[in-house]
Amino acid sequence: MKIKTPTLLIDQAIVKNNIRKMLDKVSNPDKLRPHFKTHQSIEVGEIFKEFGITKITVSSVSMAKYFSQHWNDITIAFTLNLFEIDEINQLNEIIKTNILVESLETISILERRLSRPIDFFIKIDTGYNRTGMHPNNPEIEKIINMSGNSKKLNFKGFLTHAGNTYNAKGSNEILDIMERSFSELEFLSNRFNNRNELISSYGDTPSCSMASSLDMFDEIRPGNFTYYDIMQYHIGSCEFEDIATVVACPVVAIHPERNEIVILGGAVHLSKEHIQGDNNFKLFGYVVEFIDKITYNSSTIDDKNIRWGKPVNGTYVKGLSQEHGIISASDEFIQKTHVGDLIGIMPVHSCLTANLLKDNQVFI
Amino acid sequence: MKIKTPTLLIDQAIVKNNIRKMLDKVSNPDKLRPHFKTHQSIEVGEIFKEFGITKITVSSVSMAKYFSQHWNDITIAFTLNLFEIDEINQLNEIIKTNILVESLETISILERRLSRPIDFFIKIDTGYNRTGMHPNNPEIEKIINMSGNSKKLNFKGFLTHAGNTYNAKGSNEILDIMERSFSELEFLSNRFNNRNELISSYGDTPSCSMASSLDMFDEIRPGNFTYYDIMQYHIGSCEFEDIATVVACPVVAIHPERNEIVILGGAVHLSKEHIQGDNNFKLFGYVVEFIDKITYNSSTIDDKNIRWGKPVNGTYVKGLSQEHGIISASDEFIQKTHVGDLIGIMPVHSCLTANLLKDNQVFI
Repeated sequence: MKIKTPTLLIDQAIVKNNIRKMLDKVSNPDKLRPHFKTHQSIEVGEIFKEFGITKITVSSVSMAKYFSQHWNDITIAFTLNLFEIDEINQLNEIIKTNILVESLETISILERRLSRPIDFFIKIDTGYNRTGMHPNNPEIEKIINMSGNSKKLNFKGFLTHAGNTYNAKGSNEILDIMERSFSELEFLSNRFNNRNELISSYGDTPSCSMASSLDMFDEIRPGNFTYYDIMQYHIGSCEFEDIATVVACPVVAIHPERNEIVILGGAVHLSKEHIQGDNNFKLFGYVVEFIDKITYNSSTIDDKNIRWGKPVNGTYVKGLSQEHGIISASDEFIQKTHVGDLIGIMPVHSCLTANLLKDNQVFI
Repeated sequence: MKIKTPTLLIDQAIVKNNIRKMLDKVSNPDKLRPHFKTHQSIEVGEIFKEFGITKITVSSVSMAKYFSQHWNDITIAFTLNLFEIDEINQLNEIIKTNILVESLETISILERRLSRPIDFFIKIDTGYNRTGMHPNNPEIEKIINMSGNSKKLNFKGFLTHAGNTYNAKGSNEILDIMERSFSELEFLSNRFNNRNELISSYGDTPSCSMASSLDMFDEIRPGNFTYYDIMQYHIGSCEFEDIATVVACPVVAIHPERNEIVILGGAVHLSKEHIQGDNNFKLFGYVVEFIDKITYNSSTIDDKNIRWGKPVNGTYVKGLSQEHGIISASDEFIQKTHVGDLIGIMPVHSCLTANLLKDNQVFI
């Protein structure tokens, strides 16, 4: 027992199972370029390597730097930040770095400022309306022409993140979004691809989890599927059994008169991400019990042997402040829970929780 | 210019002004034990020292450890986590450590496990209903009696956090909450104080900001007032001019067709804390311009000379994903903003934002 404060427990068997299921949907592991923003972990990266993965996606230059000692082909799937060109040049000296561009202006700045050739994708907006160029944007052709005349800019293909699947209702709508994204990437690849070398790169966990095959894409970049979470459970991307992480949290107070349990485990550990319903209902996490009960006094339990069950019925995290979590608990759960117990919180959004607990993780 | 990614700018002049105004409400700077969870910064701590502050509050054992090299009287204002008794013992060897207790069971465990005497407060719930004992709870007397017979447990007084002020409407209701909290602490102190040595410790930024005097309390522990934020502005605790921090964020994309600006600046920088209105309106931050425009190409601007104006009218952060912020912008602001500009985001909840950007701060 060394767990003393909120700690991210990562079940490696579940992670492996999630990777295996994703790989079953493509004919070649080379098609999966997993997004590492979810876990930001060298150790989880090693698990991916066991499955033959050689290329990864990240969402920031600093994350790319962090992984560059272990991976030599990294796509920074975030529209280029002009403030970081020097850092990108440094990275591109060491490893194969792929960047994202969505404006002609950026391309001409890059042409002047790049120290050596780099591969770039054009970010396409296939309906999420967050970033990216509309497929009919006439600037796309100009970017491609400009890079054709450049010795530094290698146009690699079209990339989209179909984040609109997160707002879709049900698998039909989610798979429709994927089909539409595919058509738009396909349209662009056909239009601009003289050499059949352009890559269509697609990513998002909901549709990649629901589709039976993803082989139509040249590359897929889901990330959250590595851990999954309550949000994905509600979208329908996974079952509870597929959720690979919970946060172990100490119970610090119990208030039976209002059916509440207070844990050390707040916004700085779990993030304020929540699911909101009517009547002010907010859900910041489900509660799970550990199969072998753990208390502050436990001395025999090895952290690596901790396992958890399904979410406890009628029991959930109803509020978070900076360090406190407030659990609304069933009578039954209140009765068997004591100050000094360790309980598990299944996170609403594992990417944000894992980011906050980067330095406090235990693999089981 | 070294700002390249989301960076917390801290205006020291505003911080000093906020501290000065709070100190004006007490007769002795010794009465202010500021909560350092907001800034978690040694440098901001040094500013407090200039004002004669010698004692601080933190919300975790690890934060206490972090500050223990610079401060020798620290209250951990979080109900004792039994898993961390060893760490508390270590801390209590080095500095004067004050802890919080809210159950008899914890007291008897402490009696067995403490390595040397410690001062403790009883956490009282004066209406927030998060943690703490109800003022009429008969266990309070038992705790005090038990500590009276103990050589290790020094009962120091009653402590409350009136977090219910955050949900109150208007200054009358907020000051009523303060009055009620004071009465309840006073009732307890009178009931149990034979030696006139008990301390009543009170904290929360809204009421401490609105009250003209705080001298009735023996000790106040506000924290957020150091920086303030949009939440406090809406509660009425501060003006925009009192908000001491903004996050400098690079503009990475502009979508005039939907009046949106995309910044590098997401949930991992700002936190998902937001203010929600009807019709799906969500506000994750206001946008400010820097007085001297800053772009990726600026070479002459010293980070220390950056200053910002008031929030831009009709312009706010409407959504956040992990690294992206989406700004809904006025026509005018869209027209003058370009990819590669640096803009400022005034945070909704500065404590959570400062926690995320602990390693990326610039004092101006």
